[in-house]
Amino acid sequence: MHDSIKGFRSVIEISVAWGDMDAAQHVNNTVYLRYGETSRIEFMRSCGIDFDIKGSGFILGEINCKYIFPLTFPDKVWVGTRAMLDTIENHSFWTEQIIVSQQHNRISAILQSKLVNYDFVQLKKSLLSDQIINSLHHFEKQL
Amino acid sequence: MHDSIKGFRSVIEISVAWGDMDAAQHVNNTVYLRYGETSRIEFMRSCGIDFDIKGSGFILGEINCKYIFPLTFPDKVWVGTRAMLDTIENHSFWTEQIIVSQQHNRISAILQSKLVNYDFVQLKKSLLSDQIINSLHHFEKQL
Amino acid sequence: MHDSIKGFRSVIEISVAWGDMDAAQHVNNTVYLRYGETSRIEFMRSCGIDFDIKGSGFILGEINCKYIFPLTFPDKVWVGTRAMLDTIENHSFWTEQIIVSQQHNRISAILQSKLVNYDFVQLKKSLLSDQIINSLHHFEKQL
Amino acid sequence: MHDSIKGFRSVIEISVAWGDMDAAQHVNNTVYLRYGETSRIEFMRSCGIDFDIKGSGFILGEINCKYIFPLTFPDKVWVGTRAMLDTIENHSFWTEQIIVSQQHNRISAILQSKLVNYDFVQLKKSLLSDQIINSLHHFEKQL
Repeated sequence: MHDSIKGFRSVIEISVAWGDMDAAQHVNNTVYLRYGETSRIEFMRSCGIDFDIKGSGFILGEINCKYIFPLTFPDKVWVGTRAMLDTIENHSFWTEQIIVSQQHNRISAILQSKLVNYDFVQLKKSLLSDQIINSLHHFEKQL
Repeated sequence: MHDSIKGFRSVIEISVAWGDMDAAQHVNNTVYLRYGETSRIEFMRSCGIDFDIKGSGFILGEINCKYIFPLTFPDKVWVGTRAMLDTIENHSFWTEQIIVSQQHNRISAILQSKLVNYDFVQLKKSLLSDQIINSLHHFEKQL
Repeated sequence: MHDSIKGFRSVIEISVAWGDMDAAQHVNNTVYLRYGETSRIEFMRSCGIDFDIKGSGFILGEINCKYIFPLTFPDKVWVGTRAMLDTIENHSFWTEQIIVSQQHNRISAILQSKLVNYDFVQLKKSLLSDQIINSLHHFEKQL
Repeated sequence: MHDSIKGFRSVIEISVAWGDMDAAQHVNNTVYLRYGETSRIEFMRSCGIDFDIKGSGFILGEINCKYIFPLTFPDKVWVGTRAMLDTIENHSFWTEQIIVSQQHNRISAILQSKLVNYDFVQLKKSLLSDQIINSLHHFEKQL
Protein backbone atom coordinates (compact mmCIF):
# COMPACT_ATOMS: atom_id res chain seq x y z
CA MET A 1 0.00 0.00 0.00
CA HIS A 2 1.29 3.46 -0.93
CA ASP A 3 2.79 5.27 2.08
CA SER A 4 0.43 8.21 1.78
CA ILE A 5 -2.63 6.01 2.40
CA LYS A 6 -1.24 4.94 5.78
CA GLY A 7 -2.28 8.28 7.22
CA PHE A 8 -5.92 7.29 6.72
CA ARG A 9 -7.78 5.02 9.10
CA SER A 10 -10.77 4.71 6.76
CA VAL A 11 -9.74 3.25 3.41
CA ILE A 12 -11.81 1.47 0.78
CA GLU A 13 -10.80 -0.29 -2.40
CA ILE A 14 -12.63 0.44 -5.66
CA SER A 15 -12.16 -1.28 -9.02
CA VAL A 16 -12.08 1.24 -11.84
CA ALA A 17 -14.88 0.30 -14.26
CA TRP A 18 -14.36 0.51 -18.01
CA GLY A 19 -17.47 2.68 -18.10
CA ASP A 20 -15.84 5.19 -15.73
CA MET A 21 -13.75 6.36 -18.68
CA ASP A 22 -14.91 9.06 -21.06
CA ALA A 23 -14.13 9.77 -24.70
CA ALA A 24 -10.66 11.02 -23.75
CA GLN A 25 -10.03 7.44 -22.52
CA HIS A 26 -9.29 8.59 -18.98
CA VAL A 27 -11.54 8.19 -15.95
CA ASN A 28 -13.95 11.12 -16.19
CA ASN A 29 -13.47 14.03 -13.78
CA THR A 30 -16.90 13.49 -12.18
CA VAL A 31 -16.00 9.90 -11.24
CA TYR A 32 -13.27 11.03 -8.84
CA LEU A 33 -16.00 12.76 -6.86
CA ARG A 34 -18.10 9.60 -6.95
CA TYR A 35 -15.14 7.62 -5.57
CA GLY A 36 -14.76 10.29 -2.89
CA GLU A 37 -18.47 10.14 -2.02
CA THR A 38 -18.36 6.37 -1.66
CA SER A 39 -15.36 6.56 0.65
CA ARG A 40 -16.87 9.43 2.66
CA ILE A 41 -20.04 7.47 3.31
CA GLU A 42 -17.98 4.48 4.47
CA PHE A 43 -16.02 6.85 6.72
CA MET A 44 -19.27 8.13 8.21
CA ARG A 45 -20.51 4.61 8.84
CA SER A 46 -17.22 3.73 10.50
CA CYS A 47 -17.65 6.75 12.78
CA GLY A 48 -21.19 5.66 13.60
CA ILE A 49 -22.69 8.77 12.02
CA ASP A 50 -26.05 8.09 10.35
CA PHE A 51 -27.46 9.60 7.21
CA ASP A 52 -31.23 9.86 7.53
CA ILE A 53 -33.13 11.72 4.85
CA LYS A 54 -36.11 11.90 7.22
CA GLY A 55 -33.90 13.57 9.85
CA SER A 56 -30.49 15.05 9.28
CA GLY A 57 -27.31 14.21 7.42
CA PHE A 58 -24.24 15.79 5.89
CA ILE A 59 -24.38 17.49 2.52
CA LEU A 60 -21.48 18.91 0.53
CA GLY A 61 -20.86 22.61 0.97
CA GLU A 62 -17.71 22.80 -1.10
CA ILE A 63 -15.31 20.44 -2.78
CA ASN A 64 -11.81 20.87 -4.12
CA CYS A 65 -10.21 18.20 -6.26
CA LYS A 66 -6.63 18.21 -7.53
CA TYR A 67 -6.25 15.82 -10.45
CA ILE A 68 -2.63 14.63 -10.29
CA PHE A 69 -2.48 11.56 -12.45
CA PRO A 70 -5.18 10.32 -14.87
CA LEU A 71 -6.70 6.96 -13.98
CA THR A 72 -7.47 4.41 -16.68
CA PHE A 73 -9.11 1.00 -16.82
CA PRO A 74 -8.03 -1.57 -15.69
CA ASP A 75 -6.87 -0.45 -12.26
CA LYS A 76 -7.89 -0.57 -8.62
CA VAL A 77 -7.70 2.41 -6.32
CA TRP A 78 -7.43 2.95 -2.60
CA VAL A 79 -9.61 5.81 -1.43
CA GLY A 80 -8.86 7.15 2.04
CA THR A 81 -10.93 9.66 4.01
CA ARG A 82 -10.08 11.49 7.21
CA ALA A 83 -11.73 14.26 9.18
CA MET A 84 -9.63 17.41 9.51
CA LEU A 85 -10.34 17.87 13.21
CA ASP A 86 -9.10 21.46 13.39
CA THR A 87 -11.72 22.51 10.81
CA ILE A 88 -14.72 21.56 12.97
CA GLU A 89 -17.10 24.51 13.21
CA ASN A 90 -20.65 24.92 14.46
CA HIS A 91 -22.33 23.32 11.44
CA SER A 92 -19.53 21.84 9.37
CA PHE A 93 -16.14 20.20 9.10
CA TRP A 94 -13.75 19.32 6.28
CA THR A 95 -12.52 15.93 5.18
CA GLU A 96 -9.37 15.21 3.24
CA GLN A 97 -9.30 12.31 0.80
CA ILE A 98 -6.75 10.71 -1.45
CA ILE A 99 -7.22 8.38 -4.37
CA VAL A 100 -4.23 6.10 -4.99
CA SER A 101 -3.75 4.03 -8.15
CA GLN A 102 -2.63 0.50 -7.26
CA GLN A 103 -1.37 -0.10 -10.77
CA HIS A 104 0.94 2.91 -10.68
CA ASN A 105 1.44 3.11 -6.90
CA ARG A 106 0.84 6.86 -7.17
CA ILE A 107 -1.61 9.38 -5.80
CA SER A 108 -4.09 10.11 -8.57
CA ALA A 109 -6.15 12.82 -6.86
CA ILE A 110 -6.52 14.72 -3.59
CA LEU A 111 -9.92 16.01 -2.48
CA GLN A 112 -10.95 18.34 0.28
CA SER A 113 -14.65 18.51 1.07
CA LYS A 114 -16.64 20.69 3.40
CA LEU A 115 -19.48 18.72 4.96
CA VAL A 116 -22.41 20.67 6.31
CA ASN A 117 -24.87 19.09 8.71
CA TYR A 118 -28.31 19.50 7.17
CA ASP A 119 -31.80 19.13 8.57
CA PHE A 120 -33.87 17.50 5.80
CA VAL A 121 -37.13 18.31 7.59
CA GLN A 122 -36.56 22.01 8.17
CA LEU A 123 -34.39 22.30 5.03
CA LYS A 124 -31.61 24.24 6.73
CA LYS A 125 -28.18 23.65 8.21
CA SER A 126 -28.05 22.09 11.63
CA LEU A 127 -25.60 22.24 14.55
CA LEU A 128 -23.02 19.47 14.90
CA SER A 129 -24.02 17.52 18.00
CA ASP A 130 -21.44 16.71 20.69
CA GLN A 131 -21.96 13.09 19.78
CA ILE A 132 -20.84 13.69 16.19
CA ILE A 133 -17.84 15.76 17.28
CA ASN A 134 -16.82 13.10 19.78
CA SER A 135 -17.21 10.37 17.17
CA LEU A 136 -14.91 12.20 14.77
CA HIS A 137 -12.25 12.76 17.43
CA HIS A 138 -12.53 9.23 18.73
CA PHE A 139 -12.27 7.70 15.28
CA GLU A 140 -9.26 9.69 14.10
CA LYS A 141 -7.32 9.18 17.31
CA GLN A 142 -7.40 5.43 16.88
CA LEU A 143 -5.12 5.63 13.85
CA MET B 1 -32.16 35.72 -16.72
CA HIS B 2 -30.43 36.12 -13.37
CA ASP B 3 -28.12 39.15 -13.33
CA SER B 4 -25.05 37.12 -12.47
CA ILE B 5 -25.27 35.14 -15.70
CA LYS B 6 -24.99 38.35 -17.74
CA GLY B 7 -21.26 38.43 -17.05
CA PHE B 8 -20.86 35.28 -19.14
CA ARG B 9 -20.74 35.32 -22.90
CA SER B 10 -20.95 31.54 -23.16
CA VAL B 11 -24.13 30.25 -21.55
CA ILE B 12 -26.00 26.98 -22.09
CA GLU B 13 -29.32 25.78 -20.77
CA ILE B 14 -29.64 22.32 -19.25
CA SER B 15 -32.81 20.58 -18.08
CA VAL B 16 -32.28 18.87 -14.76
CA ALA B 17 -33.10 15.17 -15.25
CA TRP B 18 -34.99 13.21 -12.59
CA GLY B 19 -32.12 10.74 -12.70
CA ASP B 20 -29.64 13.48 -11.76
CA MET B 21 -30.98 13.26 -8.22
CA ASP B 22 -29.60 10.84 -5.65
CA ALA B 23 -31.15 9.15 -2.62
CA ALA B 24 -31.06 12.46 -0.72
CA GLN B 25 -33.48 13.72 -3.40
CA HIS B 26 -31.15 16.52 -4.46
CA VAL B 27 -29.09 16.66 -7.64
CA ASN B 28 -25.99 14.62 -6.82
CA ASN B 29 -22.72 16.49 -6.23
CA THR B 30 -21.03 14.85 -9.22
CA VAL B 31 -23.70 16.14 -11.59
CA TYR B 32 -22.71 19.77 -11.00
CA LEU B 33 -19.32 18.88 -12.45
CA ARG B 34 -21.00 17.20 -15.41
CA TYR B 35 -23.03 20.38 -16.04
CA GLY B 36 -19.79 22.35 -15.78
CA GLU B 37 -18.02 20.00 -18.21
CA THR B 38 -20.81 20.33 -20.75
CA SER B 39 -20.69 24.12 -20.56
CA ARG B 40 -16.89 24.20 -20.70
CA ILE B 41 -16.86 22.15 -23.88
CA GLU B 42 -19.41 24.48 -25.45
CA PHE B 43 -17.24 27.42 -24.37
CA MET B 44 -14.24 25.83 -26.05
CA ARG B 45 -16.17 25.25 -29.25
CA SER B 46 -17.34 28.87 -29.20
CA CYS B 47 -13.71 29.97 -28.89
CA GLY B 48 -12.77 27.72 -31.79
CA ILE B 49 -10.52 25.54 -29.61
CA ASP B 50 -10.56 21.89 -30.67
CA PHE B 51 -10.37 18.83 -28.52
CA ASP B 52 -8.53 16.09 -30.38
CA ILE B 53 -7.67 12.93 -28.55
CA LYS B 54 -5.19 12.09 -31.32
CA GLY B 55 -3.46 15.44 -30.78
CA SER B 56 -3.92 17.77 -27.84
CA GLY B 57 -6.73 19.06 -25.69
CA PHE B 58 -7.46 20.46 -22.27
CA ILE B 59 -7.74 18.23 -19.24
CA LEU B 60 -8.76 19.23 -15.73
CA GLY B 61 -5.90 19.97 -13.36
CA GLU B 62 -8.02 21.13 -10.45
CA ILE B 63 -11.61 21.95 -9.74
CA ASN B 64 -13.31 23.83 -6.96
CA CYS B 65 -17.07 23.75 -6.55
CA LYS B 66 -19.08 25.72 -4.01
CA TYR B 67 -22.53 24.20 -3.58
CA ILE B 68 -24.78 27.10 -2.64
CA PHE B 69 -28.32 25.90 -3.19
CA PRO B 70 -29.40 22.28 -3.83
CA LEU B 71 -30.98 21.67 -7.23
CA THR B 72 -33.99 19.39 -7.57
CA PHE B 73 -36.08 18.04 -10.44
CA PRO B 74 -37.93 19.61 -12.19
CA ASP B 75 -35.84 22.66 -12.99
CA LYS B 76 -33.75 24.16 -15.76
CA VAL B 77 -30.36 25.72 -15.19
CA TRP B 78 -28.22 28.27 -16.97
CA VAL B 79 -24.57 27.30 -16.95
CA GLY B 80 -22.12 30.05 -17.84
CA THR B 81 -18.38 29.67 -18.47
CA ARG B 82 -15.72 32.33 -18.81
CA ALA B 83 -11.95 32.29 -19.08
CA MET B 84 -10.16 34.10 -16.27
CA LEU B 85 -7.71 35.88 -18.57
CA ASP B 86 -5.32 36.92 -15.81
CA THR B 87 -4.73 33.27 -14.87
CA ILE B 88 -3.24 32.30 -18.23
CA GLU B 89 0.11 30.60 -17.70
CA ASN B 90 2.43 28.61 -19.94
CA HIS B 91 0.37 25.42 -19.97
CA SER B 92 -2.90 26.31 -18.27
CA PHE B 93 -5.66 28.77 -17.46
CA TRP B 94 -8.65 28.85 -15.14
CA THR B 95 -12.30 29.13 -16.02
CA GLU B 96 -15.06 30.37 -13.74
CA GLN B 97 -18.53 28.92 -14.06
CA ILE B 98 -21.89 29.48 -12.46
CA ILE B 99 -24.97 27.29 -12.39
CA VAL B 100 -28.21 29.25 -11.98
CA SER B 101 -31.55 27.65 -11.13
CA GLN B 102 -34.30 29.08 -13.34
CA GLN B 103 -37.01 27.86 -10.97
CA HIS B 104 -35.53 29.70 -8.00
CA ASN B 105 -33.69 32.46 -9.92
CA ARG B 106 -30.68 31.83 -7.71
CA ILE B 107 -27.07 30.76 -8.14
CA SER B 108 -26.89 27.09 -7.23
CA ALA B 109 -23.15 26.56 -7.58
CA ILE B 110 -19.91 28.30 -8.54
CA LEU B 111 -17.05 26.35 -10.07
CA GLN B 112 -13.46 27.26 -10.77
CA SER B 113 -11.48 24.89 -12.95
CA LYS B 114 -7.85 24.80 -13.96
CA LEU B 115 -7.51 23.58 -17.52
CA VAL B 116 -4.18 22.14 -18.56
CA ASN B 117 -3.25 21.74 -22.21
CA TYR B 118 -2.36 18.10 -22.71
CA ASP B 119 -0.59 16.27 -25.49
CA PHE B 120 -2.40 12.94 -25.87
CA VAL B 121 0.38 11.52 -28.04
CA GLN B 122 3.32 12.30 -25.77
CA LEU B 123 1.15 12.01 -22.63
CA LYS B 124 2.41 15.25 -21.09
CA LYS B 125 1.33 18.83 -20.67
CA SER B 126 1.76 21.10 -23.65
CA LEU B 127 2.33 24.84 -24.12
CA LEU B 128 -0.67 27.09 -24.80
CA SER B 129 -0.28 28.26 -28.38
CA ASP B 130 -0.58 31.95 -29.25
CA GLN B 131 -3.65 30.97 -31.24
CA ILE B 132 -5.37 29.61 -28.14
CA ILE B 133 -4.41 32.62 -26.03
CA ASN B 134 -5.65 34.99 -28.70
CA SER B 135 -8.90 33.08 -29.04
CA LEU B 136 -9.56 33.34 -25.31
CA HIS B 137 -8.86 37.07 -25.27
CA HIS B 138 -10.86 37.68 -28.41
CA PHE B 139 -13.87 35.72 -27.16
CA GLU B 140 -14.06 37.30 -23.72
CA LYS B 141 -13.64 40.83 -25.02
CA GLN B 142 -16.75 40.53 -27.15
CA LEU B 143 -18.96 40.40 -24.07
CA MET C 1 -38.81 16.08 -37.31
CA HIS C 2 -38.31 12.46 -38.33
CA ASP C 3 -41.59 10.83 -39.41
CA SER C 4 -41.37 8.10 -36.81
CA ILE C 5 -41.52 10.61 -33.96
CA LYS C 6 -44.89 11.88 -35.18
CA GLY C 7 -46.57 8.81 -33.72
CA PHE C 8 -45.67 10.06 -30.24
CA ARG C 9 -47.64 12.71 -28.42
CA SER C 10 -45.05 13.06 -25.67
CA VAL C 11 -41.68 14.10 -27.08
CA ILE C 12 -38.74 15.79 -25.39
CA GLU C 13 -35.50 17.12 -26.80
CA ILE C 14 -32.18 16.25 -25.14
CA SER C 15 -28.74 17.59 -26.04
CA VAL C 16 -26.18 14.81 -26.10
CA ALA C 17 -23.45 15.76 -23.60
CA TRP C 18 -19.79 15.12 -24.36
CA GLY C 19 -19.65 13.25 -21.08
CA ASP C 20 -22.36 10.85 -22.26
CA MET C 21 -19.72 9.20 -24.44
CA ASP C 22 -17.50 6.41 -23.20
CA ALA C 23 -14.01 5.27 -24.18
CA ALA C 24 -15.38 3.82 -27.43
CA GLN C 25 -16.32 7.42 -28.31
CA HIS C 26 -19.99 6.58 -28.68
CA VAL C 27 -22.77 7.46 -26.25
CA ASN C 28 -22.60 4.75 -23.59
CA ASN C 29 -25.30 2.06 -23.60
CA THR C 30 -26.55 3.07 -20.14
CA VAL C 31 -27.22 6.63 -21.30
CA TYR C 32 -29.94 5.51 -23.73
CA LEU C 33 -31.83 4.22 -20.69
CA ARG C 34 -31.28 7.53 -18.93
CA TYR C 35 -32.72 9.38 -21.95
CA GLY C 36 -35.64 6.95 -21.88
CA GLU C 37 -36.19 7.51 -18.15
CA THR C 38 -36.21 11.27 -18.59
CA SER C 39 -38.78 11.04 -21.38
CA ARG C 40 -40.90 8.53 -19.46
CA ILE C 41 -41.11 10.82 -16.45
CA GLU C 42 -42.15 13.71 -18.69
CA PHE C 43 -44.78 11.41 -20.24
CA MET C 44 -46.11 10.57 -16.78
CA ARG C 45 -46.29 14.24 -15.85
CA SER C 46 -48.14 14.97 -19.08
CA CYS C 47 -50.64 12.25 -18.20
CA GLY C 48 -51.06 13.73 -14.72
CA ILE C 49 -49.63 10.63 -13.04
CA ASP C 50 -47.65 11.44 -9.90
CA PHE C 51 -44.57 9.76 -8.58
CA ASP C 52 -44.59 9.85 -4.81
CA ILE C 53 -41.95 7.95 -2.94
CA LYS C 54 -44.07 8.27 0.22
CA GLY C 55 -47.01 6.66 -1.59
CA SER C 56 -46.86 4.83 -4.89
CA GLY C 57 -45.22 5.19 -8.27
CA PHE C 58 -44.07 3.20 -11.27
CA ILE C 59 -40.86 1.21 -11.22
CA LEU C 60 -39.27 -0.65 -14.10
CA GLY C 61 -40.09 -4.35 -14.32
CA GLU C 62 -38.32 -5.00 -17.59
CA ILE C 63 -36.62 -3.06 -20.33
CA ASN C 64 -35.64 -3.92 -23.86
CA CYS C 65 -33.40 -1.62 -25.88
CA LYS C 66 -32.44 -2.10 -29.52
CA TYR C 67 -29.36 -0.03 -30.35
CA ILE C 68 -29.71 0.83 -34.03
CA PHE C 69 -27.30 3.66 -34.66
CA PRO C 70 -24.56 4.88 -32.28
CA LEU C 71 -25.01 8.44 -31.03
CA THR C 72 -22.05 10.77 -30.72
CA PHE C 73 -21.45 14.30 -29.43
CA PRO C 74 -22.44 16.84 -30.68
CA ASP C 75 -26.04 15.96 -31.46
CA LYS C 76 -29.55 16.53 -30.19
CA VAL C 77 -32.12 13.79 -29.90
CA TRP C 78 -35.88 13.60 -29.84
CA VAL C 79 -37.13 11.07 -27.32
CA GLY C 80 -40.75 10.01 -27.69
CA THR C 81 -42.77 7.91 -25.23
CA ARG C 82 -46.17 6.32 -25.66
CA ALA C 83 -48.24 3.91 -23.61
CA MET C 84 -49.03 0.63 -25.34
CA LEU C 85 -52.69 0.59 -24.33
CA ASP C 86 -53.27 -3.05 -25.19
CA THR C 87 -50.60 -4.11 -22.67
CA ILE C 88 -52.41 -2.70 -19.63
CA GLU C 89 -52.72 -5.37 -16.95
CA ASN C 90 -53.69 -5.33 -13.29
CA HIS C 91 -50.42 -3.89 -12.01
CA SER C 92 -48.47 -2.87 -15.09
CA PHE C 93 -48.32 -1.57 -18.64
CA TRP C 94 -45.64 -1.21 -21.31
CA THR C 95 -44.35 1.94 -22.94
CA GLU C 96 -42.64 2.20 -26.29
CA GLN C 97 -39.96 4.81 -26.83
CA ILE C 98 -37.77 5.95 -29.68
CA ILE C 99 -34.62 8.03 -29.67
CA VAL C 100 -34.06 9.95 -32.90
CA SER C 101 -30.77 11.65 -33.81
CA GLN C 102 -31.43 15.12 -35.20
CA GLN C 103 -27.99 15.27 -36.79
CA HIS C 104 -28.55 12.09 -38.78
CA ASN C 105 -32.36 12.21 -38.96
CA ARG C 106 -32.41 8.54 -38.03
CA ILE C 107 -33.77 6.37 -35.24
CA SER C 108 -30.89 5.61 -32.91
CA ALA C 109 -32.65 3.28 -30.48
CA ILE C 110 -36.04 1.75 -29.68
CA LEU C 111 -36.98 0.89 -26.10
CA GLN C 112 -39.84 -1.06 -24.64
CA SER C 113 -40.33 -0.84 -20.89
CA LYS C 114 -42.69 -2.59 -18.51
CA LEU C 115 -43.82 -0.22 -15.79
CA VAL C 116 -45.08 -1.76 -12.57
CA ASN C 117 -47.12 0.26 -10.10
CA TYR C 118 -45.34 0.02 -6.77
CA ASP C 119 -46.41 0.84 -3.24
CA PHE C 120 -43.35 2.38 -1.56
CA VAL C 121 -44.92 2.05 1.89
CA GLN C 122 -45.88 -1.61 1.75
CA LEU C 123 -42.96 -2.41 -0.62
CA LYS C 124 -45.06 -4.42 -3.06
CA LYS C 125 -46.75 -4.01 -6.40
CA SER C 126 -50.02 -2.14 -6.44
CA LEU C 127 -53.14 -2.22 -8.64
CA LEU C 128 -53.44 0.34 -11.45
CA SER C 129 -56.25 2.66 -10.43
CA ASP C 130 -59.07 3.48 -12.85
CA GLN C 131 -57.79 7.04 -12.74
CA ILE C 132 -54.38 5.98 -14.08
CA ILE C 133 -55.91 3.77 -16.77
CA ASN C 134 -58.23 6.55 -17.86
CA SER C 135 -55.36 9.04 -17.95
CA LEU C 136 -53.33 6.79 -20.23
CA HIS C 137 -56.26 6.25 -22.61
CA HIS C 138 -57.20 9.92 -22.58
CA PHE C 139 -53.65 11.06 -23.26
CA GLU C 140 -52.91 8.70 -26.13
CA LYS C 141 -56.22 9.34 -27.86
CA GLN C 142 -55.46 13.03 -28.18
CA LEU C 143 -52.65 12.31 -30.65
CA MET D 1 -22.79 -18.01 -3.14
CA HIS D 2 -26.30 -18.24 -4.58
CA ASP D 3 -26.79 -21.46 -6.55
CA SER D 4 -27.72 -19.65 -9.74
CA ILE D 5 -24.30 -17.98 -9.97
CA LYS D 6 -22.58 -21.39 -10.07
CA GLY D 7 -23.62 -21.73 -13.70
CA PHE D 8 -21.28 -18.86 -14.58
CA ARG D 9 -17.56 -19.27 -14.96
CA SER D 10 -16.94 -15.52 -15.16
CA VAL D 11 -18.16 -13.79 -11.99
CA ILE D 12 -17.17 -10.46 -10.51
CA GLU D 13 -18.09 -8.83 -7.22
CA ILE D 14 -19.24 -5.21 -7.15
CA SER D 15 -19.99 -3.10 -4.07
CA VAL D 16 -23.18 -1.12 -4.54
CA ALA D 17 -22.29 2.57 -4.12
CA TRP D 18 -24.58 4.93 -2.24
CA GLY D 19 -24.50 7.13 -5.33
CA ASP D 20 -25.89 4.27 -7.46
CA MET D 21 -29.26 4.98 -5.88
CA ASP D 22 -31.71 7.49 -7.29
CA ALA D 23 -34.43 9.59 -5.71
CA ALA D 24 -36.63 6.49 -5.32
CA GLN D 25 -33.88 5.19 -3.00
CA HIS D 26 -33.28 2.11 -5.12
CA VAL D 27 -30.32 1.47 -7.38
CA ASN D 28 -31.20 3.28 -10.60
CA ASN D 29 -32.23 1.19 -13.61
CA THR D 30 -29.25 2.39 -15.69
CA VAL D 31 -26.79 1.11 -13.07
CA TYR D 32 -27.80 -2.52 -13.65
CA LEU D 33 -26.56 -2.08 -17.22
CA ARG D 34 -23.33 -0.57 -15.92
CA TYR D 35 -22.82 -3.59 -13.65
CA GLY D 36 -23.54 -5.81 -16.65
CA GLU D 37 -21.06 -3.88 -18.82
CA THR D 38 -18.32 -4.21 -16.20
CA SER D 39 -18.87 -7.95 -15.93
CA ARG D 40 -19.05 -8.38 -19.71
CA ILE D 41 -15.71 -6.66 -20.18
CA GLU D 42 -14.14 -8.91 -17.53
CA PHE D 43 -15.68 -11.90 -19.32
CA MET D 44 -14.11 -10.75 -22.60
CA ARG D 45 -10.72 -10.33 -20.95
CA SER D 46 -11.00 -13.80 -19.44
CA CYS D 47 -11.71 -15.18 -22.92
CA GLY D 48 -8.70 -13.31 -24.29
CA ILE D 49 -10.85 -11.15 -26.57
CA ASP D 50 -9.46 -7.63 -26.96
CA PHE D 51 -11.34 -4.40 -27.28
CA ASP D 52 -9.39 -2.03 -29.50
CA ILE D 53 -10.98 1.21 -30.54
CA LYS D 54 -8.37 1.53 -33.28
CA GLY D 55 -9.35 -1.91 -34.62
CA SER D 56 -12.44 -3.85 -33.73
CA GLY D 57 -14.47 -4.69 -30.66
CA PHE D 58 -17.94 -5.67 -29.54
CA ILE D 59 -20.72 -3.15 -29.25
CA LEU D 60 -24.22 -3.71 -27.90
CA GLY D 61 -26.88 -4.47 -30.50
CA GLU D 62 -29.69 -5.13 -28.07
CA ILE D 63 -30.18 -5.56 -24.37
CA ASN D 64 -32.97 -7.00 -22.29
CA CYS D 65 -33.05 -6.54 -18.54
CA LYS D 66 -35.58 -8.07 -16.15
CA TYR D 67 -35.58 -6.22 -12.85
CA ILE D 68 -36.59 -8.80 -10.25
CA PHE D 69 -35.63 -7.33 -6.91
CA PRO D 70 -34.58 -3.71 -6.24
CA LEU D 71 -31.03 -3.29 -4.99
CA THR D 72 -30.21 -0.79 -2.25
CA PHE D 73 -27.07 0.46 -0.52
CA PRO D 74 -25.33 -1.10 1.35
CA ASP D 75 -24.98 -4.39 -0.49
CA LYS D 76 -22.55 -6.32 -2.63
CA VAL D 77 -23.52 -8.13 -5.79
CA TRP D 78 -22.18 -11.03 -7.80
CA VAL D 79 -22.41 -10.39 -11.52
CA GLY D 80 -22.00 -13.42 -13.74
CA THR D 81 -21.65 -13.45 -17.53
CA ARG D 82 -21.76 -16.35 -19.93
CA ALA D 83 -21.81 -16.68 -23.71
CA MET D 84 -24.90 -18.37 -25.10
CA LEU D 85 -22.98 -20.57 -27.53
CA ASP D 86 -26.02 -21.56 -29.60
CA THR D 87 -26.66 -17.90 -30.47
CA ILE D 88 -23.36 -17.39 -32.29
CA GLU D 89 -24.02 -15.94 -35.74
CA ASN D 90 -21.79 -14.40 -38.40
CA HIS D 91 -21.33 -11.05 -36.66
CA SER D 92 -22.81 -11.48 -33.20
CA PHE D 93 -23.60 -13.60 -30.17
CA TRP D 94 -25.68 -13.20 -27.02
CA THR D 95 -24.55 -13.23 -23.44
CA GLU D 96 -26.67 -13.98 -20.41
CA GLN D 97 -25.93 -12.26 -17.14
CA ILE D 98 -27.29 -12.36 -13.63
CA ILE D 99 -26.91 -9.91 -10.79
CA VAL D 100 -27.22 -11.51 -7.34
CA SER D 101 -27.63 -9.55 -4.11
CA GLN D 102 -25.35 -10.93 -1.42
CA GLN D 103 -27.36 -9.25 1.33
CA HIS D 104 -30.58 -10.92 0.26
CA ASN D 105 -29.10 -14.01 -1.43
CA ARG D 106 -31.50 -13.42 -4.32
CA ILE D 107 -31.27 -12.74 -8.03
CA SER D 108 -31.85 -9.03 -8.51
CA ALA D 109 -31.77 -8.87 -12.31
CA ILE D 110 -31.25 -10.98 -15.41
CA LEU D 111 -29.79 -9.46 -18.57
CA GLN D 112 -29.47 -10.77 -22.08
CA SER D 113 -27.26 -8.80 -24.45
CA LYS D 114 -26.55 -9.13 -28.13
CA LEU D 115 -22.91 -8.29 -28.84
CA VAL D 116 -22.04 -7.25 -32.37
CA ASN D 117 -18.45 -7.30 -33.59
CA TYR D 118 -17.70 -3.82 -34.89
CA ASP D 119 -14.92 -2.43 -37.02
CA PHE D 120 -14.11 1.00 -35.56
CA VAL D 121 -12.04 1.95 -38.62
CA GLN D 122 -14.60 1.12 -41.30
CA LEU D 123 -17.52 1.89 -38.95
CA LYS D 124 -19.45 -1.26 -39.76
CA LYS D 125 -20.10 -4.69 -38.32
CA SER D 126 -17.39 -7.25 -38.72
CA LEU D 127 -17.30 -11.06 -38.97
CA LEU D 128 -16.57 -13.07 -35.83
CA SER D 129 -13.16 -14.62 -36.39
CA ASP D 130 -12.60 -18.33 -35.77
CA GLN D 131 -10.29 -17.29 -32.97
CA ILE D 132 -13.10 -15.50 -31.16
CA ILE D 133 -15.55 -18.35 -31.67
CA ASN D 134 -13.01 -20.85 -30.41
CA SER D 135 -12.24 -18.68 -27.39
CA LEU D 136 -15.91 -18.53 -26.43
CA HIS D 137 -16.35 -22.29 -26.76
CA HIS D 138 -13.13 -23.03 -24.94
CA PHE D 139 -13.96 -20.70 -22.07
CA GLU D 140 -17.48 -21.92 -21.47
CA LYS D 141 -16.55 -25.58 -21.66
CA GLN D 142 -14.15 -25.20 -18.75
CA LEU D 143 -17.00 -24.58 -16.33
